[in-house]
Amino acid sequence: MTSVLNPQAEDVAMSFAGLWDSLLPVGRDATTGGYRRYSFTEADAACREWFFKAAAERSLRADSDRNGNLWAWWDVPTAGPASSAVLTGSHLDSVPDGGAYDGPLGVVSGFAAIDLLRAGGFAPARPVAVAAFCEEEGARFGVPCLGSRLLTGVLPPQAARELRDGRGVTLAEAMTGAGLDPAGLGEDDELLGSIGTFVELHIEQGRALADLGAPVAIAEAIWPHGRWRLELTGRADHAGTTRLADRSDPMLPLAATMLSARQAAASHRALATVGKVIALPGAANAICSTVSAWLDARAPYQAVLDGAVSEILRIAERAAAKHGVGCTIVPESVTPRVEFDAGLRGRLAAVLAASGAGPADGDADGGGAGRPVRHAVPVLSTGAGHDAGVIAARLPAAMLFVRNPTGVSHSPAEHADPADCEAGVVALAAVLEELAGR
Amino acid sequence: MTSVLNPQAEDVAMSFAGLWDSLLPVGRDATTGGYRRYSFTEADAACREWFFKAAAERSLRADSDRNGNLWAWWDVPTAGPASSAVLTGSHLDSVPDGGAYDGPLGVVSGFAAIDLLRAGGFAPARPVAVAAFCEEEGARFGVPCLGSRLLTGVLPPQAARELRDGRGVTLAEAMTGAGLDPAGLGEDDELLGSIGTFVELHIEQGRALADLGAPVAIAEAIWPHGRWRLELTGRADHAGTTRLADRSDPMLPLAATMLSARQAAASHRALATVGKVIALPGAANAICSTVSAWLDARAPYQAVLDGAVSEILRIAERAAAKHGVGCTIVPESVTPRVEFDAGLRGRLAAVLAASGAGPADGDADGGGAGRPVRHAVPVLSTGAGHDAGVIAARLPAAMLFVRNPTGVSHSPAEHADPADCEAGVVALAAVLEELAGR
Repeated sequence: MTSVLNPQAEDVAMSFAGLWDSLLPVGRDATTGGYRRYSFTEADAACREWFFKAAAERSLRADSDRNGNLWAWWDVPTAGPASSAVLTGSHLDSVPDGGAYDGPLGVVSGFAAIDLLRAGGFAPARPVAVAAFCEEEGARFGVPCLGSRLLTGVLPPQAARELRDGRGVTLAEAMTGAGLDPAGLGEDDELLGSIGTFVELHIEQGRALADLGAPVAIAEAIWPHGRWRLELTGRADHAGTTRLADRSDPMLPLAATMLSARQAAASHRALATVGKVIALPGAANAICSTVSAWLDARAPYQAVLDGAVSEILRIAERAAAKHGVGCTIVPESVTPRVEFDAGLRGRLAAVLAASGAGPADGDADGGGAGRPVRHAVPVLSTGAGHDAGVIAARLPAAMLFVRNPTGVSHSPAEHADPADCEAGVVALAAVLEELAGR
Repeated sequence: MTSVLNPQAEDVAMSFAGLWDSLLPVGRDATTGGYRRYSFTEADAACREWFFKAAAERSLRADSDRNGNLWAWWDVPTAGPASSAVLTGSHLDSVPDGGAYDGPLGVVSGFAAIDLLRAGGFAPARPVAVAAFCEEEGARFGVPCLGSRLLTGVLPPQAARELRDGRGVTLAEAMTGAGLDPAGLGEDDELLGSIGTFVELHIEQGRALADLGAPVAIAEAIWPHGRWRLELTGRADHAGTTRLADRSDPMLPLAATMLSARQAAASHRALATVGKVIALPGAANAICSTVSAWLDARAPYQAVLDGAVSEILRIAERAAAKHGVGCTIVPESVTPRVEFDAGLRGRLAAVLAASGAGPADGDADGGGAGRPVRHAVPVLSTGAGHDAGVIAARLPAAMLFVRNPTGVSHSPAEHADPADCEAGVVALAAVLEELAGR
């Protein structure tokens, strides 16, 4: 098959920039410059409005599914039976003070890739959809990939409805407040059954591509990862009068846990982080009564992860016992290693190699007169969870990563160069053309 | 001088209980059972209303001074020149989820002691005042003894007006919102000049009296103490993708600081606590960008405190440097050792010994037929700061402590037995009689 794509750099840049610039101000904090796009808030409503407007401008049929995920459909009336659509997209929500790219880049690139395919006169044989999954980051209700977990039935709907945010508002209440009906939450086999493949484009969350000199990579696998909530229960008391021997101070086992997390990560070649701590009552002159802390841990393989986490939690429990502090450990959203579909990965590698998306040597020693040598598109594994990792349990899924020159992620400083974003759009368009073209 | 006091136990109990029970529900959180009486909030307004009502019921002239402190005056028209009034009282505000006694016991006991003196027919030669000082705990604006520091000029009024609470509201804005004028803040020599002595009654914040079997003690000194704010500045990044070597995670020097605080406290025989931590952005899957932590440290003597604190802060700075984290240390409200006025303490000891307030032996071997031996009232030092410690810089001040059977403080579990509270009222009345009687 010959590609109809003959992208004009200017067209790609204009299409991308128009979408990107219109989303950029939504939910950005004026002080930190970071994003606070949490589910079912005003910022989230503005993101949803942006999505529907982008779909309408492209005459894509758009709706919200029962789980709060957004869909924009390039329908193909002459398409064959079910299980045929090609899905792309990502998410629009953010971590607290997150960056602009993590999530939105995949949604914007999905729309821009459709623009590019249409500009090239491409007529899909299968429907193409762009999705924005709900609460991928878990920043409000604590469960990452909330929307895709509900869609695929991994998260039971009643458990989801009862999730509470930091202020005690349930997911059901928040959805209702946003005009959505929480009664409809849950597995959606009809919707899933209409999709054949999912390819999520995402900014890289590390600097492997920067080191390799390549703008785009294909994902091989998502590391096994999880978070564990530690509830450390001591006794509130006066910081200025309570003898050391009479204290049960939950900050002390917290400190031991944080240090052991770093040590275990280093010795097991894993990652372990405590990024969220709630210490109550939180007075400078009172010993804490309770400390809640979240351990995030990831490793290339399950056995490595298990080894590191069990070492950290053993140290936490031992330190708690030593200080007379209660210690409850609650595993949250523990996810095994996900290998992306090998056949789908192979098709992506072939089409991207053919379209010249791989990194180029400066030399001209092998590709004919004056043409640089093109290498195969790099293949990376990642420690970050993604909706594609959840969806992969139900249908062939794959991911494309776009170069992140600093590797910084989950931060206002997260960045990708415009030229790399455009290379991502071109690569995604080539992939959609391959998958939807026959 | 012979005491007019011949307290009827029932009268004391009724007077105390009436005041106590009417204050008890104000600002109590239904979930934790702890108090959240923060300056210039609704709970604070209800405390102020309670104070004015208690004063009005006793025909005491009541007002708020320029610094938000409340005063109820038992005026004596025939009293001599200025510098003559006898002041008692304490504070009504609380730490987050504090107990019912820390502060309010001194205010309630002041009113109840006046009831007792009047029931005994006491005619004061000097005015007697009951005060409730504003924001003793520093729970909203971060400066403990805010009202007494403003009154005595230790805290400059412009610096106070610019203090901000956790939501960014300034003290000036909060005062204005509560109907008070922040323009009037500052040293009040006229008011201070009208007072001769201050005796603050307070629940003990440890269990020394429980061990001694005594209901009441006299304070000797307040330990030197202070709080130091650590601002640890790292770089927000993705917890699942950032290599350990690329991280600057402020949680790691925080952990080292918390452990070193406990170690230094133990080795220097001091107290050191981290009870308040704010970790931002606070996502489970993001490395923190900044951590603010407050070190509270106290010791019997300045040299001991200096030794412990410099050791802790040195370790904090070293750990921050090791992890590529910025570390700024801001001393907040550092207070030297306060020795209460020796002459005033001597008068209290004498009058309390004469009134039989000391602990009793069960034996009957020395006090005449069947009467138990009465020991001198215990004398204690404390690690807790108090308004009396601030006021002591300007005029003779003293404190009475009431037994705390568990020693628990700054907690909903804080408690004193009714009989001990009543013994405190009787002791305070005897002291006021002594000080205001001539």
